[in-house]
Amino acid sequence: MSTGLRRVRAIVAYDGAAFHGFAENPGVETVAGALRPVIEAVAGSPIELVGAGRTDAGVHAWGQVVSFDVPESTDLGAIVRAVNARGRQALVMREIEVAPPDFSARFSARSRIYRYRVLNTPAPNPFLAATTWHVPDPVSLAALNNACVALIGEHDYTSFCKRPKDKPDASLVRHVLRAEWCDKGDGVLEFEIEATAFCHNMVRSIVGTLVDVGLGRRTAAYVRQLLVARDRAGAPRVAPPQGLMLWAVTY
Amino acid sequence: MSTGLRRVRAIVAYDGAAFHGFAENPGVETVAGALRPVIEAVAGSPIELVGAGRTDAGVHAWGQVVSFDVPESTDLGAIVRAVNARGRQALVMREIEVAPPDFSARFSARSRIYRYRVLNTPAPNPFLAATTWHVPDPVSLAALNNACVALIGEHDYTSFCKRPKDKPDASLVRHVLRAEWCDKGDGVLEFEIEATAFCHNMVRSIVGTLVDVGLGRRTAAYVRQLLVARDRAGAPRVAPPQGLMLWAVTY
Repeated sequence: MSTGLRRVRAIVAYDGAAFHGFAENPGVETVAGALRPVIEAVAGSPIELVGAGRTDAGVHAWGQVVSFDVPESTDLGAIVRAVNARGRQALVMREIEVAPPDFSARFSARSRIYRYRVLNTPAPNPFLAATTWHVPDPVSLAALNNACVALIGEHDYTSFCKRPKDKPDASLVRHVLRAEWCDKGDGVLEFEIEATAFCHNMVRSIVGTLVDVGLGRRTAAYVRQLLVARDRAGAPRVAPPQGLMLWAVTY
Repeated sequence: MSTGLRRVRAIVAYDGAAFHGFAENPGVETVAGALRPVIEAVAGSPIELVGAGRTDAGVHAWGQVVSFDVPESTDLGAIVRAVNARGRQALVMREIEVAPPDFSARFSARSRIYRYRVLNTPAPNPFLAATTWHVPDPVSLAALNNACVALIGEHDYTSFCKRPKDKPDASLVRHVLRAEWCDKGDGVLEFEIEATAFCHNMVRSIVGTLVDVGLGRRTAAYVRQLLVARDRAGAPRVAPPQGLMLWAVTY
């Protein structure tokens, strides 16, 4: 870190429908692509923006964490105001603070917490369509939670992950600390899963599988069989992105 | 009512952002314009669609009530399925039932209940942007509720209404049965107002006025003065449409 710079940590929330994912991608609107130039304009210097999780297109975030360096003279409040004015409510900087010089939103993270919401009512709901997966047939909460147990602990998640093309040999072993469903009322079933890290498509693949169990199309044993199989080909449907939210990151 | 027809009452919910208001309007997508052809296709005959409230462009509904006649042989469940398949979650038929032959969604209504939600936090929230008015400066709930009292009862709402061009002499006297604000948590302040009927722009004009009182820019006495003045020219800002929802209609 150069002299005269300080490391900053910020928490951002965004509506996934407004962006083609988190990571910068030329020609399309992404979260990092929207944030970086606004922060640079306030800081008056180029920055490297590090995010805790690379959310996919359509996936929401309430507690995405980013880190970057700005000159010591930069007013952090001005960064918040500039981002929130630019974001037109689809992208909001919720908090900002000075962080230790070696802090990295990505590498310092101890765990990521995702939430996935299913609307389990016969009719859809216009006001939940943007943030839930509507599943009209009855889903058993008990069956969802029974099937969850198999996920807890350290497992090879090959059957539940899209293997990165640029790292075909990367380990897909991940450590799931918690996974549970609860009834939020009004037909909303919410899944919360915490892991040290996630691989690509992991939460949506898990939810697709669990919901099949909750619908009675699969047994809880199937989840365990899939894990052991370590074969993406056997994996079931991937739940749609709009039900997923990066809820929080712990450090 | 012709022989062989029966009157039907249905409850529909819709995302106001997806429609240019309730009433049919050639060349633009409206709620009635989306509903009618779908119902006619199932019924196999033309219908006249009556709505309880003509919501404006951008205004949501959870409990809009509509009435219409269909042949006795028409499967009401098929109407619900057709509307919900067509509505792509922005327009949902929540309930349907046979009504008495003289029932009118509009003229049989005893009262309409509207809700208006204000997000009163310094930062906006991407997940509430579509259904709240974001007011960043602190609003006093006590001041909102003090100012409400003046509205209850029968008053001439000329100062708070957009007078219909086609009926320049229509009475704008309306009877407000209830009006109150409550704190829903997470910074959301919710206004609920029930009246036998509302005139055009009435709830949004009231909310614009009350929020000015809640912000300390106006006193509670100002609301009473406006009512007495019966002059639209003195009216303050109209709150934006996305915070408003036709919540329910009573019969």
